[in-house]
Amino acid sequence: MLLSGLGLAQNIEQKLIEILAKGQKQGLAPPKLAIIHGNDSPASKIYIKKKIEKCTQLGCQAELFSFSPFSTKKEVLELVSKLNVDQKIHGILCQLPVFKHWDGNEILQAISPKKDVDGLHPENMGLLLMEKPRFIPCTPQGILWLLDFYQFNLQGKHAFILGRSSIVGRPLSILLSQKKRNMSVTLCHSYSKNWRSLVALADLLIVAVGKPHLLSEETLKKDAIVIDVGVNSTLENGISTTLGDVDTQKIEPKVAAVSQVPGGVGPLTIVSLIYNLCLAAGYPCTQTEMAKPKVFSDKDPK
Amino acid sequence: MLLSGLGLAQNIEQKLIEILAKGQKQGLAPPKLAIIHGNDSPASKIYIKKKIEKCTQLGCQAELFSFSPFSTKKEVLELVSKLNVDQKIHGILCQLPVFKHWDGNEILQAISPKKDVDGLHPENMGLLLMEKPRFIPCTPQGILWLLDFYQFNLQGKHAFILGRSSIVGRPLSILLSQKKRNMSVTLCHSYSKNWRSLVALADLLIVAVGKPHLLSEETLKKDAIVIDVGVNSTLENGISTTLGDVDTQKIEPKVAAVSQVPGGVGPLTIVSLIYNLCLAAGYPCTQTEMAKPKVFSDKDPK
Repeated sequence: MLLSGLGLAQNIEQKLIEILAKGQKQGLAPPKLAIIHGNDSPASKIYIKKKIEKCTQLGCQAELFSFSPFSTKKEVLELVSKLNVDQKIHGILCQLPVFKHWDGNEILQAISPKKDVDGLHPENMGLLLMEKPRFIPCTPQGILWLLDFYQFNLQGKHAFILGRSSIVGRPLSILLSQKKRNMSVTLCHSYSKNWRSLVALADLLIVAVGKPHLLSEETLKKDAIVIDVGVNSTLENGISTTLGDVDTQKIEPKVAAVSQVPGGVGPLTIVSLIYNLCLAAGYPCTQTEMAKPKVFSDKDPK
Repeated sequence: MLLSGLGLAQNIEQKLIEILAKGQKQGLAPPKLAIIHGNDSPASKIYIKKKIEKCTQLGCQAELFSFSPFSTKKEVLELVSKLNVDQKIHGILCQLPVFKHWDGNEILQAISPKKDVDGLHPENMGLLLMEKPRFIPCTPQGILWLLDFYQFNLQGKHAFILGRSSIVGRPLSILLSQKKRNMSVTLCHSYSKNWRSLVALADLLIVAVGKPHLLSEETLKKDAIVIDVGVNSTLENGISTTLGDVDTQKIEPKVAAVSQVPGGVGPLTIVSLIYNLCLAAGYPCTQTEMAKPKVFSDKDPK
């Protein structure tokens, strides 16, 4: 089975539009996101454009603060201080990576934890670790929604995560092993020596490394579920394609399910950000109501 | 090989005494710890007594604030607020568990993160997760010291941790998989279904469950290193004994090394607290200088 996040993302967007309309009838202000942009990467520009579009499309607001390479860290920190106390701003995100002469961590830590809709402030990371999450980082939240949507029962089973980033692998390793999911969790990374023997024991594989088709020939468990977080753009013979970290074609016949790239986890990431923004603006929404289980039909690919 | 923490604890105490003497010559105040005690457990009383004794023995100060079962949560939170701004107090710890009508988490979160010498405040948990630890929780820090002391090279190897508590298993799973140690880490717990098959792949096993002799018959790797965090008091035929989570006698012939109970991790926990207290009071000490590698001699048990 190929797992798609497109339908689920649309469901959640619809749900958020309803919640936003209801809240605004009751006098809540439209949620407003401030985006700090301090790098030269073309990919970042595309991501930011998509975030702003989705914000306005769903009835939220977004304001972009772009910095030139000559801007100092002091300038961006002064902006963050202003945004932290600006009552019209509910969420602040700093598009990563930032210019080398800035300090990404220092900026993330300067953002008020109550406006940190990316969930990357130490206080929010700590709350997540204590099973009291305020904002779950966007990609991990999207993955949890996808797993819930397809109703996989993973209680007590073994999750194998490849990639220890603080944005994906690390928070996911914590969330999956907590009481709600109760999974055994193995976290591996580029220095892991024996990860291939651990893969063979995994009921759930999450690959978040950023290397095209890294996973293809492994001995996977017959009924494994594979979530591919990789988005790798390659240019071959003048044609640009997007590849995941997993060679889906090779793996699909062997496993129970594998997520598409593109169209798997990707579409859920931005909607997860808007969900966090709605939370920050005081709209009543819960994680569980977002990912109501999929109703399967005959039209679904088997 | 049996791993003892006694000699290492003494080394670290000696080092701390020197650092404290030097700092006080330069005008630093003696570090002072405030201990909040709100439960009826006889074990807690013993732990607190040991902490106060070690404080004073090494040249620090400690003040105990004991509450009766009739004290309200409000009263203890008021005390925490006062201690947070009291310049004579450098560290605050709340002995867990607390009375049921209090909220342990709320108290931990009320303690100023800069005085949270147990390292359990969400901000400190988050900093740990971001590889910028301010205070490492005491038992995990003791275990890292023990591993460094015996010079085990664990880079890239597989650690298996049984027990997901926020005091031991959880922070340790994070610390071992970070860049300094680069281990693959599996975290299991009471709901894990397949943990015994994962144990067989582990180069390092850490058992922190609190069940006497839970681990004994497993298929362990021949050269595995086993760290036993369990402290289980049992009473048999009127004789009280302390048992670990591991049946050391059965396991020792099969593995490379196993930590003693008592006398393994235990002695390092309190000295780790004093180390954090010294850090909180501004004394210059680093984690690395504490656990200088052991110099092996012919007298060491093989």
